[in-house]
Amino acid sequence: MNFEHHPTTQALMQRLESFMREHVEPFEAEYHRFNQHNEHADWQQWTLHPQVAKLKALAREQGLWNLFLPDDELGAGLTTTQYAPLAEIMGRSLLAPEIFNCNAPDTGNMEVLYHFGNDAQKQAWLVPLLAGEIRSVFCMTEPDVASSDATNMQATIQEDGDEIVVNGRKWWSTGLGHPDAKFAIVMGLSRPQAVKHQQHSMVIVPLDSEGVHIERMLPAFNSFDAPYGHGEVRFDQVRVPRENVIGELGMGFAIAQGRLGPGRIHHCMRALGAAERVLELLIKRATTRQAFGQPLIKLGGNAERVAEHRMAIDQARLYTLSAADKIDRLGVRHAMSEISGIKVVVPNVLQRVVDDAIQIHGGAGMSNDYPLPAFYTVARALRLADGPDEVHRAMVTRTELKKYRQDSEGQARPATKK
Amino acid sequence: MNFEHHPTTQALMQRLESFMREHVEPFEAEYHRFNQHNEHADWQQWTLHPQVAKLKALAREQGLWNLFLPDDELGAGLTTTQYAPLAEIMGRSLLAPEIFNCNAPDTGNMEVLYHFGNDAQKQAWLVPLLAGEIRSVFCMTEPDVASSDATNMQATIQEDGDEIVVNGRKWWSTGLGHPDAKFAIVMGLSRPQAVKHQQHSMVIVPLDSEGVHIERMLPAFNSFDAPYGHGEVRFDQVRVPRENVIGELGMGFAIAQGRLGPGRIHHCMRALGAAERVLELLIKRATTRQAFGQPLIKLGGNAERVAEHRMAIDQARLYTLSAADKIDRLGVRHAMSEISGIKVVVPNVLQRVVDDAIQIHGGAGMSNDYPLPAFYTVARALRLADGPDEVHRAMVTRTELKKYRQDSEGQARPATKK
Amino acid sequence: MNFEHHPTTQALMQRLESFMREHVEPFEAEYHRFNQHNEHADWQQWTLHPQVAKLKALAREQGLWNLFLPDDELGAGLTTTQYAPLAEIMGRSLLAPEIFNCNAPDTGNMEVLYHFGNDAQKQAWLVPLLAGEIRSVFCMTEPDVASSDATNMQATIQEDGDEIVVNGRKWWSTGLGHPDAKFAIVMGLSRPQAVKHQQHSMVIVPLDSEGVHIERMLPAFNSFDAPYGHGEVRFDQVRVPRENVIGELGMGFAIAQGRLGPGRIHHCMRALGAAERVLELLIKRATTRQAFGQPLIKLGGNAERVAEHRMAIDQARLYTLSAADKIDRLGVRHAMSEISGIKVVVPNVLQRVVDDAIQIHGGAGMSNDYPLPAFYTVARALRLADGPDEVHRAMVTRTELKKYRQDSEGQARPATKK
Amino acid sequence: MNFEHHPTTQALMQRLESFMREHVEPFEAEYHRFNQHNEHADWQQWTLHPQVAKLKALAREQGLWNLFLPDDELGAGLTTTQYAPLAEIMGRSLLAPEIFNCNAPDTGNMEVLYHFGNDAQKQAWLVPLLAGEIRSVFCMTEPDVASSDATNMQATIQEDGDEIVVNGRKWWSTGLGHPDAKFAIVMGLSRPQAVKHQQHSMVIVPLDSEGVHIERMLPAFNSFDAPYGHGEVRFDQVRVPRENVIGELGMGFAIAQGRLGPGRIHHCMRALGAAERVLELLIKRATTRQAFGQPLIKLGGNAERVAEHRMAIDQARLYTLSAADKIDRLGVRHAMSEISGIKVVVPNVLQRVVDDAIQIHGGAGMSNDYPLPAFYTVARALRLADGPDEVHRAMVTRTELKKYRQDSEGQARPATKK
Repeated sequence: MNFEHHPTTQALMQRLESFMREHVEPFEAEYHRFNQHNEHADWQQWTLHPQVAKLKALAREQGLWNLFLPDDELGAGLTTTQYAPLAEIMGRSLLAPEIFNCNAPDTGNMEVLYHFGNDAQKQAWLVPLLAGEIRSVFCMTEPDVASSDATNMQATIQEDGDEIVVNGRKWWSTGLGHPDAKFAIVMGLSRPQAVKHQQHSMVIVPLDSEGVHIERMLPAFNSFDAPYGHGEVRFDQVRVPRENVIGELGMGFAIAQGRLGPGRIHHCMRALGAAERVLELLIKRATTRQAFGQPLIKLGGNAERVAEHRMAIDQARLYTLSAADKIDRLGVRHAMSEISGIKVVVPNVLQRVVDDAIQIHGGAGMSNDYPLPAFYTVARALRLADGPDEVHRAMVTRTELKKYRQDSEGQARPATKK
Repeated sequence: MNFEHHPTTQALMQRLESFMREHVEPFEAEYHRFNQHNEHADWQQWTLHPQVAKLKALAREQGLWNLFLPDDELGAGLTTTQYAPLAEIMGRSLLAPEIFNCNAPDTGNMEVLYHFGNDAQKQAWLVPLLAGEIRSVFCMTEPDVASSDATNMQATIQEDGDEIVVNGRKWWSTGLGHPDAKFAIVMGLSRPQAVKHQQHSMVIVPLDSEGVHIERMLPAFNSFDAPYGHGEVRFDQVRVPRENVIGELGMGFAIAQGRLGPGRIHHCMRALGAAERVLELLIKRATTRQAFGQPLIKLGGNAERVAEHRMAIDQARLYTLSAADKIDRLGVRHAMSEISGIKVVVPNVLQRVVDDAIQIHGGAGMSNDYPLPAFYTVARALRLADGPDEVHRAMVTRTELKKYRQDSEGQARPATKK
Repeated sequence: MNFEHHPTTQALMQRLESFMREHVEPFEAEYHRFNQHNEHADWQQWTLHPQVAKLKALAREQGLWNLFLPDDELGAGLTTTQYAPLAEIMGRSLLAPEIFNCNAPDTGNMEVLYHFGNDAQKQAWLVPLLAGEIRSVFCMTEPDVASSDATNMQATIQEDGDEIVVNGRKWWSTGLGHPDAKFAIVMGLSRPQAVKHQQHSMVIVPLDSEGVHIERMLPAFNSFDAPYGHGEVRFDQVRVPRENVIGELGMGFAIAQGRLGPGRIHHCMRALGAAERVLELLIKRATTRQAFGQPLIKLGGNAERVAEHRMAIDQARLYTLSAADKIDRLGVRHAMSEISGIKVVVPNVLQRVVDDAIQIHGGAGMSNDYPLPAFYTVARALRLADGPDEVHRAMVTRTELKKYRQDSEGQARPATKK
Repeated sequence: MNFEHHPTTQALMQRLESFMREHVEPFEAEYHRFNQHNEHADWQQWTLHPQVAKLKALAREQGLWNLFLPDDELGAGLTTTQYAPLAEIMGRSLLAPEIFNCNAPDTGNMEVLYHFGNDAQKQAWLVPLLAGEIRSVFCMTEPDVASSDATNMQATIQEDGDEIVVNGRKWWSTGLGHPDAKFAIVMGLSRPQAVKHQQHSMVIVPLDSEGVHIERMLPAFNSFDAPYGHGEVRFDQVRVPRENVIGELGMGFAIAQGRLGPGRIHHCMRALGAAERVLELLIKRATTRQAFGQPLIKLGGNAERVAEHRMAIDQARLYTLSAADKIDRLGVRHAMSEISGIKVVVPNVLQRVVDDAIQIHGGAGMSNDYPLPAFYTVARALRLADGPDEVHRAMVTRTELKKYRQDSEGQARPATKK
């Protein structure tokens, strides 16, 4: 048992922190000002601040690029556990992940193509994604059914000769408004008669295909998250070549499962970076703002709240890192309790610290003068995205109960450990 | 002890509920759609949906007008306790209070003018406000100091011969963006040498006065709350006639104190109406949406959450009504613990039920397809407006500790009751 | 709507408070010291402190006797709402209710006999109970089944000619160890084939009947609650005359239902009296004990905790009084949500304030130098007795959902109010 | 970063678990029954169940002895981190730690003597403690002052020629009632004029010294914790030879500080073992007990509670292990935030799971038929012992704020990391 980060990680952390301090943080205010214009324009008019491309080039030049990818040549060859602290650093700024080509959902899509894509798919889509030249979308959630139960899914992916026909409606498809978004990986039902986890497929759909109707960008707490956007899209008899199927028809769930583990680690570590950033804002405000003759930190329970957040963040980070370690050592299937557990714990930790930080900032905390509403929205969305808290608590419980067996007298007994 | 509403109240409740059902609720979707355009336009271009004026006329015609005002002729002559359940009904819809000429901050301003205004002020400003022809603003909170401590206030209201000169910066001035907003009641420092509660004044400042610079509308969780808006405004050597002072110079705090009691009851009852509306949305969704073969209400702890919200709302309502009763029977000064207590309890009750309702609605809950983000923003803002939770908890504690006296041996003893 | 207590109640409150101050509080320490001996003796040796009888006589003399009973002659003729504040005052001391002949389960048993008993039963058991000459027991909960679901009940009450035969095992029968306990009202299954709520009966069983085996007193957090005790008792072919049936066979549930409403009000109001007492102890300690150069109240979040408890207690009291009012005005059946709601809310309010009070008292708070462990045990037991929190939350939810109906399109709609 | 336990630890875990299963668990019921007699006898009559000595001999024979001591010969030579999981296993049973000679406060006392004792002290007291032949006591907390602030301490340890004179009153001295308790390490004030952390001393006081008056054992939630006991003791002009001072006069705080770090790890890990045991009881009951036609686990929010406890326990364990790792790698002084953090988090985790387990067990959960009240008392006491939650939250906050420095413009800035 050893709680020190790997030397490679430590070195990358230092370089990443320098880059953040020198290039990302000073650019934040301008970036957000720019995007306020995007927010109030039609999404079709959204543009990317030109500085983003420059920073991406610089990050790539410095080798701070595709760090998430566990491939020595294409990425940094880090394990999930080794990459995790880097994701945390990126998470401190809402614009950072794209700069380092490490933003969702592109990371997950790149992983899917890396592990399951055929050569043509890799050439056409993975290479430009890895180069940061295009962006992508993952279409999973549907408006008309409770997507927390994936078997509810209604979109269809059907064979028709050499072609695949996609029909259905998806929403909360993150990144769909990005000017560089070129394709979506769409999940849908192919084989309703197959066993439960072999019914669905994933297929690559170029966004300029006929029948792809992007109907709107969805606001989350009134923000469109420009220039990414969360889109609602209708697939109306969209035809793509059969080669666009990832793996084979029916493999959708298997692929999704593999995608989820590391993806959740990334999400959670970024959220913890956000939580650290927010706690910093809280403390700065609380120690410098005066009321009733004292800094706010000395009033009421404010000081205790700092401790509660520090304890919660530190615990949530260790929990996330231990989940990463289980994924790396034993595989996703042996880390189901932890992967669901962090998905519940971390966004709630972030939501609570943002709520308290808003309180300490007073009215300013609700405005866009501080990134607090933006981080709040991230936290709130994370509690729903990729399964709501309730589904993940149920998974933790299910895993827990499996340890117990009924013996011959109907007594529940814990199974022998391991 | 008797928990039944007064017959007058009961009759008005029925008529108000009918009006809401027939005229307000069916108009809500169109109203919000219309305001999305306002939201994305410069606030100077904001317009009011033409239907609002029609509904106001209808409400006035039906006698559902100025119900908050405890005057038999100008209002309905109701006590705070008698009006409270009507405020709750209005609070179910974000657009309703204006329809009945019962929206903040106009109600508070009308009360101030009614109780403390001179004849000229009443003629010029109260009469058109009561008629719903103009709207008004209350300028209290400042950006550069912790306004939770009112003695921090920096804006100044100074005599200069027959004129009053106003200087300073205010923000979160609700309603400042409304097309009909005509004047502000501004609070500022007049006599820094006087005893603590006689230093401040209130003065009427027409918004078209020279030196009034409305610098921006502030977003709260990315919403400008069009067509009301929360403004940031700079007063730069603004001169108004001495007759615009409300009461006398130095009476600011005394007036504010009287304004607060009933105002908090109104805010809290509206928030409880919102909480009931949100709980209704939660239950409808939870009983009709299916996952894992069951309606959501049957999954995890969802059913228990309904009970928790019902118990919290019912308790918070009784607490608010008991505060109203204390104001009516004993006066604001004898209800300080309750007036602060409800200010802490009620917005938190609303915030929690909105949070759970969002969770039950999934992604849809964060979008504007439901009024949940709007109600969330109301709740979050109420926890800061007019004193943050922390200041009000401190007031409740202070009132509590006052019951104890040190006796000769240094023992704290509760004072004999009453 | 009127939040003032009835003049009769106010007058009784004053007299009761005087009695508490003059006679009960000064006796508490000696009473608890005496009972420590009982605690460490076999329950069969338990004795009652002789002062109790004297205080009972004095209370009776002063007319502070049987105040719970809504009968002008036998009691004070108060409604549930009018009696409630008196129960709160008694609840401030663990020994007070018996002094005023208002302790559970005797009050409930007296109500049952008063409303449903025949003349012989009244003569034999109600008269001496009202005189405070004997004590009684209510046998409901069983050890072998989850008694939260009353249909699980296994004890039987069967006819055999002119006799009734009782078999089964009960536990947590409060008061079974009291030296004056003379009879139990036992609930059991008579007609397994009848419709669900007509299967059970209540029967009077003298404790000296053959076949009544009191097996032990149960400790609750290591306390036997001497000289009352919570007993485990086995009924082994116990025969009593048929006249001992209360009402008729099969009426058990109906009688229990009527018993519950006012009984819950009493329990909750006493618990609120306890909460006030505990908050008083908390504040006295926090304002007089010093650490780090300040009274504890000034440290950390302690001051905020006082506010939280004040707000929680005040709300819970209003909630309980409103439930009492519904029982009085509309009947128990129309107050089901509130009767269950207070059963969840109040004991939790008490448990939280005791927990914080223990924290403020340090080690002393866990010892018997203060009544905190005793009040904690009361709170913890109340969360289970007479249905656990979970059952009552479910009842509140069920009542809530009943307001909604499915219309023809499967939409849940709230029913029109009232 | 590596989350696997050291191979030595893993091997010991297996052997310890076997010992627990084969020898400790089957003995528990009998042990507790035996101690019920102790509980109701005067503490001077307390005896140790004869089986304890046999199990101690067996544990020693198997090398499961003094595992806490980081010495290869006297103990197992484990680091704090390596020992931690073994403490967790012992914590599953309240009687286990003594069996393995690893119970508080003896472990802390042995560590103090090991690190700071002179040869005579080691010979006289450490050797028999390591052999499990005697037990010891640590006298720190005082009844008359808030011991959360150690500078409040009033007991004195003064030089008088070759002797040391001890005066004062201590309480909550754990183990003082144990039949084998032979000496106390007493902390007291020696040099009131010295700088704050050099005023106090620790001295060894044999319990048979003249002037040692053990006045009573204190009940905690009515339990005396026989045969250990928490004692109140008065030192009245107690004289011991100067050689009994540990280290030197004035070194008390320095020694206490070193004692605390590993001691807290042990306490917290044992508490986590208790939490796991309690969660097991909760699950077994919830999956086998039926109500309303279903096992309790399927009702209300019960299933979610299992997940909440699993997530809380797993996080708290990682937090404790990371604190242990910091102590081992960097020293106690660099782990102050974590050492305080776990002291807040872990006992609260245990208290919550016990509370829910009691709820699931119904009335049985409050009785001694299950170890739940005993574990509850452990949790509740741990929240006070060795500094209440509030003091430790304050330490976490203080450590957090130290990261920020005021720059020349009064801005708080986080210090550069590491």
